Amino acid sequence: MSARLLDGKALGAEVRARAGEAAKTLPGQVGLAVVLVGEDPASQVYVRNKHREAEAAGLLSFVHRLPADTPEADVVALVERLNADEAVDGILVQMPLPEGIDALRVIAAIDPDKDVDGLTETNAGRLLLGRRGLVPCTPQGSMLLAGLALPDLTGKTAVVVGRSILVGKPLALLLQAANATVTMAHSRTKDLGAVCRTADVLCAAVGRPGLLTAEHVKPGAVVIDVGINRVDAPEKGEGKTKLVGDVAPEAAEVAGWMTPVPGGVGPMTIACLLRNTVLAAARRRGLEDPRGL
Amino acid sequence: MSARLLDGKALGAEVRARAGEAAKTLPGQVGLAVVLVGEDPASQVYVRNKHREAEAAGLLSFVHRLPADTPEADVVALVERLNADEAVDGILVQMPLPEGIDALRVIAAIDPDKDVDGLTETNAGRLLLGRRGLVPCTPQGSMLLAGLALPDLTGKTAVVVGRSILVGKPLALLLQAANATVTMAHSRTKDLGAVCRTADVLCAAVGRPGLLTAEHVKPGAVVIDVGINRVDAPEKGEGKTKLVGDVAPEAAEVAGWMTPVPGGVGPMTIACLLRNTVLAAARRRGLEDPRGL
Repeated sequence: MSARLLDGKALGAEVRARAGEAAKTLPGQVGLAVVLVGEDPASQVYVRNKHREAEAAGLLSFVHRLPADTPEADVVALVERLNADEAVDGILVQMPLPEGIDALRVIAAIDPDKDVDGLTETNAGRLLLGRRGLVPCTPQGSMLLAGLALPDLTGKTAVVVGRSILVGKPLALLLQAANATVTMAHSRTKDLGAVCRTADVLCAAVGRPGLLTAEHVKPGAVVIDVGINRVDAPEKGEGKTKLVGDVAPEAAEVAGWMTPVPGGVGPMTIACLLRNTVLAAARRRGLEDPRGL
Repeated sequence: MSARLLDGKALGAEVRARAGEAAKTLPGQVGLAVVLVGEDPASQVYVRNKHREAEAAGLLSFVHRLPADTPEADVVALVERLNADEAVDGILVQMPLPEGIDALRVIAAIDPDKDVDGLTETNAGRLLLGRRGLVPCTPQGSMLLAGLALPDLTGKTAVVVGRSILVGKPLALLLQAANATVTMAHSRTKDLGAVCRTADVLCAAVGRPGLLTAEHVKPGAVVIDVGINRVDAPEKGEGKTKLVGDVAPEAAEVAGWMTPVPGGVGPMTIACLLRNTVLAAARRRGLEDPRGL
């Protein structure tokens, strides 16, 4: 493995610590409200982790658990109460919501200035229009990792493979805002290898194990692997599984820098959630964005 | 000149006629409200043209003229009255607004479902998120012109030079939504020529006369020139000027298709404004988007 590791565990811990430090400089306490509807086991783990990390960073964390059969109107009403609650700086509604609840309608109810997941149309619009807003956590975390390798992306070539609204498209806009020349590639792209080999920064956000190989990587490139795919791992024993990215591990022979999976972009997501919560708190208090965030 | 002409005057007339036909199929009349604040001579011409074309297409056109010293709050109040007015399907506030009026605050007051210029954060967000919304007129017109040459962009390579919020960024997203592989290039892009020569569809939206030359064009490419620049034309007489695009005319020797300036993207803008107004009207009436628009 020749590529240097872009360590999301380490950077995530640093970002969480910086968010905690910044929170301390603000008047009052910074509060994050997480809404969990139903009993989805993965969601319960995620919410527990968010709660734990928020508290560890010194933020107030309010977890609201609602039964799976809660009517949509009640979920919306809770969001509206949280919008009005002065103690709440950030609101996160854990996805997916149970069947029968329209996620778009619930998201649309979130005050954009408390929308720390960056899911509202208003925050998407602010990102496209280059205005100050709250950016989805995974693409933001990807940018921070890329910044470890290339602090200045001006004039660099970036290729984003995948055009999801959660990662691919916002990441392309963030890279462009950082003055990279960005190509948005996807399932319909012809000669994906040639496109990817133009990239100084190659981002994979498709959700297909091993979609990109060493053949796709320009020597020395920064590779950001956003994919987190669970695959069978017979080598670990019968019925065992493991997490792998969208980029085959041997790409590290060619890349200059590369994020591991797990331990790359994944741990940045909660870190950026806390970062967004502190940003939202500062802005709600009429203050500048805290330095060092 | 070997490139075939992408005639915006002809296509614009066709789109205006189709918008008029579609408007006739809707219950009630379709209404467009245009707000003009102040005496800017260019703005007066634009507003007159919009009014004339709206009426020619059989739409109701309401022009609201306010003096240049109108307080911002009164402009916002007018917009709010138009939001509530059942006879109004589309609202356009002519830019630029006089000094002392915050354009962002006025735009933010427009009901996104009546925002036929596609300027609100909500409509930008809907575009980024791939949801149904109202798209800015100039990039929409560029897409319709490109579609004359390449009805299916799937797998094609597109390069957009310029990253303005009015043209470059929305156009890149529209091209991507049409399944093109899109590169967003700009002033910081290195080796712009090489990037542009990858393009099956090359779009220039910078506002710099002759920025792109034959050297930038892949043989046979579709060239969409969004630039409209007024330059001196001593050949027409002392003090005379003329309009030119961002692409040097000799690029037509290499391109397969090319928009002229004037007469290319320019005439598409009002046509797409009428198209957006009819789309907004249909949606407000709870109907499907009219066919053939």
